Amino acid sequence: MNLIARNSFRLRALPYHLSSLNSMRHQATCATTATPSFPCVDAHAARESKILASSFHRYSQIGTPASSSDSGPEPPYARPNPLSYNTYHHQYPLELTYGSTLPSFDIAYETWGTLSPSHDNVILLHTGLSASSHAASTELNPTEGWWEKFIGPGRALDTNQFFIICTNVLGGCYGSTGPSSIDPEGQRYATRFPILSIFDMVQAQFKLLDHLGVQKLYASVGSSMGGMQSLAAGWLFPDRVGKIVSISGTARSSPGSIAMRHAQRSVLMADPNWNNGFYYDQLPPHTGMKLARQIATITYRSGPEWDQRFGRKLRESKDGQSPSPSRRLPTLCPDFLIESYLDHQGEQFCLKYDANSLLYISKAMDLFDLTLPALQELAMTPATHAPPSPSTSSSRQSPVPSKSHPPPLHYAPHFPELAAGLEPLKLIPTLVLGVQSDILFPVEQQRELVDALRMAGSTQVSYFELGGVWGHDTFLLDVLNVEGAVRGFLS
Amino acid sequence: MNLIARNSFRLRALPYHLSSLNSMRHQATCATTATPSFPCVDAHAARESKILASSFHRYSQIGTPASSSDSGPEPPYARPNPLSYNTYHHQYPLELTYGSTLPSFDIAYETWGTLSPSHDNVILLHTGLSASSHAASTELNPTEGWWEKFIGPGRALDTNQFFIICTNVLGGCYGSTGPSSIDPEGQRYATRFPILSIFDMVQAQFKLLDHLGVQKLYASVGSSMGGMQSLAAGWLFPDRVGKIVSISGTARSSPGSIAMRHAQRSVLMADPNWNNGFYYDQLPPHTGMKLARQIATITYRSGPEWDQRFGRKLRESKDGQSPSPSRRLPTLCPDFLIESYLDHQGEQFCLKYDANSLLYISKAMDLFDLTLPALQELAMTPATHAPPSPSTSSSRQSPVPSKSHPPPLHYAPHFPELAAGLEPLKLIPTLVLGVQSDILFPVEQQRELVDALRMAGSTQVSYFELGGVWGHDTFLLDVLNVEGAVRGFLS
Repeated sequence: MNLIARNSFRLRALPYHLSSLNSMRHQATCATTATPSFPCVDAHAARESKILASSFHRYSQIGTPASSSDSGPEPPYARPNPLSYNTYHHQYPLELTYGSTLPSFDIAYETWGTLSPSHDNVILLHTGLSASSHAASTELNPTEGWWEKFIGPGRALDTNQFFIICTNVLGGCYGSTGPSSIDPEGQRYATRFPILSIFDMVQAQFKLLDHLGVQKLYASVGSSMGGMQSLAAGWLFPDRVGKIVSISGTARSSPGSIAMRHAQRSVLMADPNWNNGFYYDQLPPHTGMKLARQIATITYRSGPEWDQRFGRKLRESKDGQSPSPSRRLPTLCPDFLIESYLDHQGEQFCLKYDANSLLYISKAMDLFDLTLPALQELAMTPATHAPPSPSTSSSRQSPVPSKSHPPPLHYAPHFPELAAGLEPLKLIPTLVLGVQSDILFPVEQQRELVDALRMAGSTQVSYFELGGVWGHDTFLLDVLNVEGAVRGFLS
Repeated sequence: MNLIARNSFRLRALPYHLSSLNSMRHQATCATTATPSFPCVDAHAARESKILASSFHRYSQIGTPASSSDSGPEPPYARPNPLSYNTYHHQYPLELTYGSTLPSFDIAYETWGTLSPSHDNVILLHTGLSASSHAASTELNPTEGWWEKFIGPGRALDTNQFFIICTNVLGGCYGSTGPSSIDPEGQRYATRFPILSIFDMVQAQFKLLDHLGVQKLYASVGSSMGGMQSLAAGWLFPDRVGKIVSISGTARSSPGSIAMRHAQRSVLMADPNWNNGFYYDQLPPHTGMKLARQIATITYRSGPEWDQRFGRKLRESKDGQSPSPSRRLPTLCPDFLIESYLDHQGEQFCLKYDANSLLYISKAMDLFDLTLPALQELAMTPATHAPPSPSTSSSRQSPVPSKSHPPPLHYAPHFPELAAGLEPLKLIPTLVLGVQSDILFPVEQQRELVDALRMAGSTQVSYFELGGVWGHDTFLLDVLNVEGAVRGFLS
């Protein structure tokens, strides 16, 4: 007695279903005897063939400019266009947090607005993991930037008032020195590139500021990993940062977010094309990158958003029409629209970003930790040799929750250590923006940051917690509320 | 000016750090010039060599029993031990939801307690995705089962009172017919196995109940996917199910949970060893399985648990000691304990479960949807041909939130449709257990199920929402609270 017969008392027009069901059965039985095919798997091989057939091989020919008529899926980072952004070349060595030294480096950057005569209106905008310096359109590059709606006259970062600088981070692949760059021996660094920290990225940015003659920032602003950089700038250079904005950032990567980045690194490094990072003269690990981006995308949005946006809708068939159930049976490949969406996000990204950059920068995010013991470890000093300063010690005695929101249910054991680590930021006015639907940098981390800053002695912390269903990506999407909070704080 | 120098005013014992730092630098510089090595990637190849060197090749030799002295990492499902469980062979065809027909099938099952003379004390226990019928130790198999602490005299499922049956689901690999089983032509089904639904799994279980002479269940109990089966049993056979328990289940897979299972299927199917599902006479996709399990593990627990359990602790080095920072610099491979934990979970699982079973069963979970329109689509009846029954229509008019908990902030558009679909369950007393830290089957879905059941007319719905940090796995770990709720409801 099957599902249909058993419930026919609840379903009308029985003869109709049964005939349709029989027709569906016939299709299914026929399909079963044939060799199964998996278009979702074949897509990887098809992409590979397309890459091979394209001008991709030029990628390995260092210094050979590709002609603009090339339209194959060559990684765009393989031939950055230095005419679309500015580049600062730092010709001196940069000592890095974990002990290595970069002999020299480039930082790609773009600017908006006008630098005031006294150089006191500069906002340094920090990017998330994979963004370029192209935060908004410029004369050099009129395409839309990743924070287009937030930069301009009267916008969150008001170009009538401020001179905004955005860089591609050290370790990136959009013009700044990273694993895909050429080392002093003329080879691509690949995984011989040193492990980076968020502090290193900020150090490099401040070398650029030195070069531009900017002694003190009006503000350091960033979202996601950019929020970490924003805090790190204040920690490293408390006298050179006027205000801090951290949107969906954190002062200390949680094991939950490390887990999600670990999963991405694992699938990427398991792609045989990754080849221990030495893929620059061969096929890049496009499948690993696609899979990693699918996982990342899950962490960037939220279940409630997908419920509203996709629900359980089925994906469109190749002719652009939603399939009717009589035309298609479920398969092991994607059936739901949410699956197509994730696939599409992965496809879009897999050749647009350098795999090694993803690994190095995502690792730098994991390593970020502003608790005092972690900072002391960076300096290789046992905690007993470096007691916290008196002001910090006294603030450790009793965690004082802020009054503007309920304190976390359980104070984590690292809470006083975080307050101690954040002590250098206590005189810098700081805006923390959190998003309730963010699963990557959850509101608990935002509240922890705010409480720890206040415990460290800061009296100028503003905190906003945004609602909505956009998850971590809210900082890209919620123009109204993010702009409102940022503009108000900066003005 | 580097990180350390810049902040030296806050760190004591400067000469000490600087000398340590220099020693660290020296190590790092040495490491940079050498060819980088990635033990976390080499582990895949090492596992492969071990599998090849073991008795693994026998896996393909159908019917050849392996000697018990074999100790290689042969997949255990390749040689199930039919002496450790019972098997019911159904020799007649089973028509499946999506139109195919299984010519015959086996169901592996185990039992605990004593069947009453009138056969009225039977509890059917449904498993999650990857569990076997071995819910608790038996005489045939004294090893600990997956719900060991919940089955026995005086426990949640009280063997003094009840006769408990647990099966390996149809599609599984622990004795029940699934993709690794032999088809009528003597070949393994592989991906020629038909797409399954949760309903199909339940149909097969009820064939077993018929065989055992059980007309009506005292209760249908299940967690996770078992919760779906528990509801499906009530829907298919409302007259044969006395009570329903759904723990961390759902009446309708959300796009968020589909996304997380999609990511798992994608990494698995991208493993070249998966070979479109035809790997039974060669290497199984052990790397894809490991990566898939890592992702799954992230969805089974919670960030707050990891914060308490692992925090930012570094992983142990090979000699079992936590590395001191002076001994190890960060790498692109796992550095944190949370990463080792995920790796370990993946390693443990990757040869223990059949990859194709994972794909088919995870897809069945995605497809599960008890809203009326979805049920009508299964019957291939356009909604206009099958108006809901009068009782359902009237219940649609106004969503009435339950009084025991706050209603969801926004009633999703499918809410009345779910109530209509659940109408067959309205006379069956139902216990719904949800967990606040569950990210795979979040409490919103539990509340939705409860509200929809009540809207469908049920007056016997009990709802408990459990706290704690164990996430989806709470049903395996929180013996006290899960047992309390289940035992109270069943008694």
